Amino acid sequence: MLRHIDAEIQNVKDAVLKMGGFVEKALQATREALLFGKPELIDEVRAQEKEINALQMKVDEMCVQLLAKQSPVAKDLRFVISVTKINTDLERMGDQTLNTVRYGLEFFGAEENVEIPEDLKKMFDVVIAMVRLGLDAFAKNDNKISREVLSQDDEVDQLKKSLFDLAKKKMDTREWSIDSGLKFVMIAKNLERLADHVTNVAEDVIFSTTGEDIRHGQGQPSAV
Amino acid sequence: MLRHIDAEIQNVKDAVLKMGGFVEKALQATREALLFGKPELIDEVRAQEKEINALQMKVDEMCVQLLAKQSPVAKDLRFVISVTKINTDLERMGDQTLNTVRYGLEFFGAEENVEIPEDLKKMFDVVIAMVRLGLDAFAKNDNKISREVLSQDDEVDQLKKSLFDLAKKKMDTREWSIDSGLKFVMIAKNLERLADHVTNVAEDVIFSTTGEDIRHGQGQPSAV
Repeated sequence: MLRHIDAEIQNVKDAVLKMGGFVEKALQATREALLFGKPELIDEVRAQEKEINALQMKVDEMCVQLLAKQSPVAKDLRFVISVTKINTDLERMGDQTLNTVRYGLEFFGAEENVEIPEDLKKMFDVVIAMVRLGLDAFAKNDNKISREVLSQDDEVDQLKKSLFDLAKKKMDTREWSIDSGLKFVMIAKNLERLADHVTNVAEDVIFSTTGEDIRHGQGQPSAV
Repeated sequence: MLRHIDAEIQNVKDAVLKMGGFVEKALQATREALLFGKPELIDEVRAQEKEINALQMKVDEMCVQLLAKQSPVAKDLRFVISVTKINTDLERMGDQTLNTVRYGLEFFGAEENVEIPEDLKKMFDVVIAMVRLGLDAFAKNDNKISREVLSQDDEVDQLKKSLFDLAKKKMDTREWSIDSGLKFVMIAKNLERLADHVTNVAEDVIFSTTGEDIRHGQGQPSAV
């Protein structure tokens, strides 16, 4: 039997996936803007970030309505709670993507002849792959995919560290100005934080599907 | 008439305020550790951060239970939704406080004779005051206090900018090492993000009490 609540849950899910699609597109545009020298793409990122903000408010409102009118329990309730959190994460990811392209364009604008560091390309690849996987895990309520997302966080931390070290060296030798070095650090920092938010999404999918709260390494089951 | 749900809501509120109390204490200990040279206080911050993490899981579980068993509506529902968000913010504030004291101790450990910048003292004062106000707004469901919190965010941004500029100057003149300068930048960045999270708390209090979603400058009322 198809319950009325199923349709509403599907609507919420669609809206979240739409939001996630904008995040992915914004991140792709950022990658292209910075790695292939297409600064004009910042306008796309700005437009996508606005869409994300509008959807955040819509999704929150949908969740409130669903809770008020359907009084969901068990798995449905956990889904709605997870979405209110995932929603916040996606919105922050929109902000961080915009920060990334902003800092990046300033950096590459000031350091015109810089060769694009391999680890920056890698970091974009890993973070974009994580975002895709995170959204896929959410779309399919799939814990295995969620765990795959979690397993990639270490690589991101390593890449961030390597990019920080690179910036320090370039600032130390004055090959880059201090100002440029700091901007480069902020690119790496924002990409790392994007990965952190995807990690949150994956944890929320696990909570939503199993009732297990794995944050802080606890693995504490929910009674609901 | 005292409804059963009122007692449960009060329990949730007490747990959130307890969590907020730990954040405030951790931030005070961080301030003392860095501005008055008491590195041993990092142990207190670590202990408080653990308490915050444990309370985060407890509060989320309480919210899920409350939603499942009481099916709250209107103001009660908005309160629970707000708490799930505030809970995430407070947990992040615990992390960021720990980051602040870590980077700070590394900075002051490496740059032993540095005079403590006035704007760093100010930034601690403003952020701690904002945290107190934010918790007070939550405790009293007070929108006026919430708006006061929001109005202080600009000052924090100014102070962060001034601290960034200071670090750039000191790195440029080599008075500080690049490594130290970056650590100092991270102190300022973490304090700014703490203020951002308090701002979120204040916005959530406004949503909880009025149903108004003021994020992204929208001021869109909720139908619930």
